[in-house]
Amino acid sequence: MKAGGMLFQNLASGEFDGKLFPVNPRVSDILGHKVYSDIAAIGESVDVAFLVVPREAVVQAVEKCAAAGVSAVCIITAGFSELGDIGSTEQSKLRQIVKRSGIALLGPNTIGFVNARCGVMGSFVGFPRWKGGGISIFAQSGVFSGGLLLDLLSRPTQCPPVGLSVGAGNKVDVDEIDFLHFCADDPETTTIGLYLESIAHPRDFLDVAAKVRKLKPIVLMKSGRTEEGARASSSHTGSQMTDDILLNVGLKQFGIARATDENEFVDALRGLAMWPKLRGRKVAVATTSGALGVISTDLLISEGLELARFTLPTVAKLKQVMPRWVEPANPFDFWVGAELNGTRFAHEHGLEALLADDNVDAFIGIFLAAPMTDFPEFAQLLRKLAKTYEKPLAVVFYGDQSARRWMTELEGARVPIFANTRAAVRSLSLAAIAAR
Amino acid sequence: MKAGGMLFQNLASGEFDGKLFPVNPRVSDILGHKVYSDIAAIGESVDVAFLVVPREAVVQAVEKCAAAGVSAVCIITAGFSELGDIGSTEQSKLRQIVKRSGIALLGPNTIGFVNARCGVMGSFVGFPRWKGGGISIFAQSGVFSGGLLLDLLSRPTQCPPVGLSVGAGNKVDVDEIDFLHFCADDPETTTIGLYLESIAHPRDFLDVAAKVRKLKPIVLMKSGRTEEGARASSSHTGSQMTDDILLNVGLKQFGIARATDENEFVDALRGLAMWPKLRGRKVAVATTSGALGVISTDLLISEGLELARFTLPTVAKLKQVMPRWVEPANPFDFWVGAELNGTRFAHEHGLEALLADDNVDAFIGIFLAAPMTDFPEFAQLLRKLAKTYEKPLAVVFYGDQSARRWMTELEGARVPIFANTRAAVRSLSLAAIAAR
Repeated sequence: MKAGGMLFQNLASGEFDGKLFPVNPRVSDILGHKVYSDIAAIGESVDVAFLVVPREAVVQAVEKCAAAGVSAVCIITAGFSELGDIGSTEQSKLRQIVKRSGIALLGPNTIGFVNARCGVMGSFVGFPRWKGGGISIFAQSGVFSGGLLLDLLSRPTQCPPVGLSVGAGNKVDVDEIDFLHFCADDPETTTIGLYLESIAHPRDFLDVAAKVRKLKPIVLMKSGRTEEGARASSSHTGSQMTDDILLNVGLKQFGIARATDENEFVDALRGLAMWPKLRGRKVAVATTSGALGVISTDLLISEGLELARFTLPTVAKLKQVMPRWVEPANPFDFWVGAELNGTRFAHEHGLEALLADDNVDAFIGIFLAAPMTDFPEFAQLLRKLAKTYEKPLAVVFYGDQSARRWMTELEGARVPIFANTRAAVRSLSLAAIAAR
Repeated sequence: MKAGGMLFQNLASGEFDGKLFPVNPRVSDILGHKVYSDIAAIGESVDVAFLVVPREAVVQAVEKCAAAGVSAVCIITAGFSELGDIGSTEQSKLRQIVKRSGIALLGPNTIGFVNARCGVMGSFVGFPRWKGGGISIFAQSGVFSGGLLLDLLSRPTQCPPVGLSVGAGNKVDVDEIDFLHFCADDPETTTIGLYLESIAHPRDFLDVAAKVRKLKPIVLMKSGRTEEGARASSSHTGSQMTDDILLNVGLKQFGIARATDENEFVDALRGLAMWPKLRGRKVAVATTSGALGVISTDLLISEGLELARFTLPTVAKLKQVMPRWVEPANPFDFWVGAELNGTRFAHEHGLEALLADDNVDAFIGIFLAAPMTDFPEFAQLLRKLAKTYEKPLAVVFYGDQSARRWMTELEGARVPIFANTRAAVRSLSLAAIAAR
C-alpha cells in the first residue's frame, strides 16, 4: 500500500506490453516479477526509471540511472524546493546531474504520469479504467493528474477524453515548454491542458505557446493570480511569483485561453476535445426555459461572445414551430412551440433551422427534461445535428429522470453536456479564444 | 395529462388536508371529487382559486371569483403581456378587477406555487416528494419554480431545503414587494430567494428589501444585466428594462446579495439555509490538495473575502499535525501531515484547531477522497465541527467512491457540499453580503 508498491502494481496490471524491472535491494520477487538489487544489474537498456526512494537516496539513485544509460527518470519522492532552503540544495544537485549527463528528469515531487495511449500507468494513484483520448495534460500539482482525474474517471458519463497526464512536480528539468514541444509533434494529442503554479521563463513560454496553439488548442490554468494566492503557491511548489498582469497581456495577445478554476479547466478541455473547430463567436441559443435563455445571453455577452442574427429563411422556418403571434428571436425560446406543435416537431425543426444557418458558428441548448418536453429520439437528434453541421453544440439539461436518460444516450456523441449555463458559456468562450 | 388535470391531481394527492372544489362545466367527477359547474355553485368560502382556463375565459373567471368572495386567484393561463400589445389589453382588465374587488391575484402566466409547509402542491409540474425547509422562493419564470427545482428534488443528496416556491408570472398584482413583506412575517421562512426579470418599482423594492434583509438574508437573481439579455427578457416576460448599473449600486448599498447564474442562486440559498450567521469575512482554508488551496485563495480574494490570520496557539496546534520543517499557513495544506501522522489524526487535530480559532469566521475545506485520506469517521467529524463551533463550513470533495460515501453520510448535517471551489467560495461570498 506504499507509493512504490502501488506504482509498480499499476504499471504491471496496466496494458503496457514492454518490459518492467523492479529494483529493490531487500526483496527478490514483486508480483511475480524478478527484482533487481541495483539498476546496474538489469543489463538491458532502460527507457524510464520511476524513483520512489527515501529523499536522502534520490541523488545517488539518479546518478546510478545516468551511469546505467537510462534515458529518463521520473522522481516521485518529495521534499525538495517546496520545503525551502533545505530541499533546494538537494534539488540543485539533481539539476547538475541533468546538465552533466543529459538524462531527462521529471519531478521531483510528482505523482508520476499516465500515458493511456501506450498503457503506461506510471502513478501511485489507484485509477479506474482509463479510456484515453486526445487531451494531454501537464500539471504542476497532484490533484490535476490525480484526485480530480480520479473523480472524472469514476463518473458514469461525460468523462473528458484524457490520453496523457503528466505530473510536473518541481520541474527541475522537464517543464511546460518541453511539454508543448512534445504535444506539437505527438500525433495523438489534439488538445493541450496546462496547470501551472510557476512559469520559469514567461517570454519563452509565450513564444512557444503562440506557435503550438496554431496547431492545437491550449487551455492554461495558472493559479497564484492574487498576491495571497501566489504566496500559497510558493509554499505548495516553491514557485516564484509571475507578474500576473503582464502574463495576462501576453496570453491575450497570443490567444492562449486561461481558465480560472479547476472546473473551467476541465470543461474547456472537454469541449475542445469533443467539438469541431469553432469558426467564429456568433452563438445561437435554443431553450425550453425563457429565464435560462436570458441568463445565458447575459453570460455570453459578458464573455465577449455574440448572439447570432438569424437569416430570413431561418426565421421563416422557426415561425413554423411557433404560434403565429410569436416573432422568433435569439435566444430561441420554444416552450410554447413545443406545447402547440408537439415537442418532437418543435425540437427537430427548430434546432435544425438554427444549426443550418450560416450566421451561426456555435450552439447552446438549455433543455428542460419533463414529460411535456421529452421524446424518445431526443439524444439521437442532437447526435445527428452535431454530425451534420460540424458546429460546436454545448448543452445543459435540467429536470427529472429524462435528463439522466438523455445524458446516457448521448455518451460517445461529440456533444458535451455542462452542469449549468455558466459552464457551457464559459467553455465556449475559452474555446473561441483557443481557436482564434 | 393537461395542465389543469395535472394541477388538480397534484393538489389532491399532496398532504393538504383542506377542502378541494374542482370546477368544470363539462364533467361531473374528477379523481372521485364532486365537480362544480361554476365557482358560484360551491357555496362555501374559498381561499384560493387556481385558474387553468382558455385565455379568452380568464377575465370572466376572475370576475366570477371576485363576485363569489374568493380571497385569491392564481392564474396559470398564459398569453398576456408577454405577447405584446394583444395580451396587454387583456392584462389591464385583470388589473382593474384587482383594484375594484381587492382580490389577490398571482400571475397570469405562472406555473403556480408550492407551499410544502401546508402541503399545497399548486402547480402542474410533477414534482417528486417535496421535503420542505426554510427557503422561500419567488420566481418570475417557470424554471426556477419548476424544472430546476424538479432537478434538485430528484437528486439523492444536497437538495436545498425549499418550503415555498411561488411562480410570479406577469405580476399583475402579487409582486416581489408583497413577497418580501410576507416572508418578513412568516415564521417558517429563514432565507429568501428572488428570481426577477423586471422590478416594477426599484426604489420601493430596495427600501423594503433593505428592511427585510435585517431579519432574513435575501439572494436576488436579476437577469437582463446586458442590453441583449434585457431584450431577451422582454420577449420572455414582457419586462421593462431596469437600469442595471443603478440597481447594482442600490443592491451594494443595502447589502442585497446578487447571484449571476442559476447555480450560484441555488448554491447561495442552500448555504444560507444550512449555515449559522456569518460573523465576518475571514476564511480558513484547509485542504489535502495544495493546488486547490491556491485556486480557492485566488477566488476568495477576488470575491472580497480574506484569509484568516491564525493565532499563535492555533499555529502551535497545526504544527503537531505537520512535519517539523513545515510552517503551517492559511491555506492549510496538510497532505504531508496526513501521510506522516495518519489521515484521521491530521484531519481531526488540524480542522479542530482551525475552527476553534477566534480569528476564523468561516471555513472552506477541499478534500481529496482516496484510500490514503479516507477514514470511517470523516463525515462524523465534519458534522461535529459544524455543531460545536457554529461557523459556516463549505466543503468540496474530489475523488473516488469515498467522496460519494462522505456525501451520503453528511446528508442532514448543516454542511453544504459544493461541486467545485468556485461554487464554495462564491456561496460564502454571497452569504457574507447577505449577512453583513
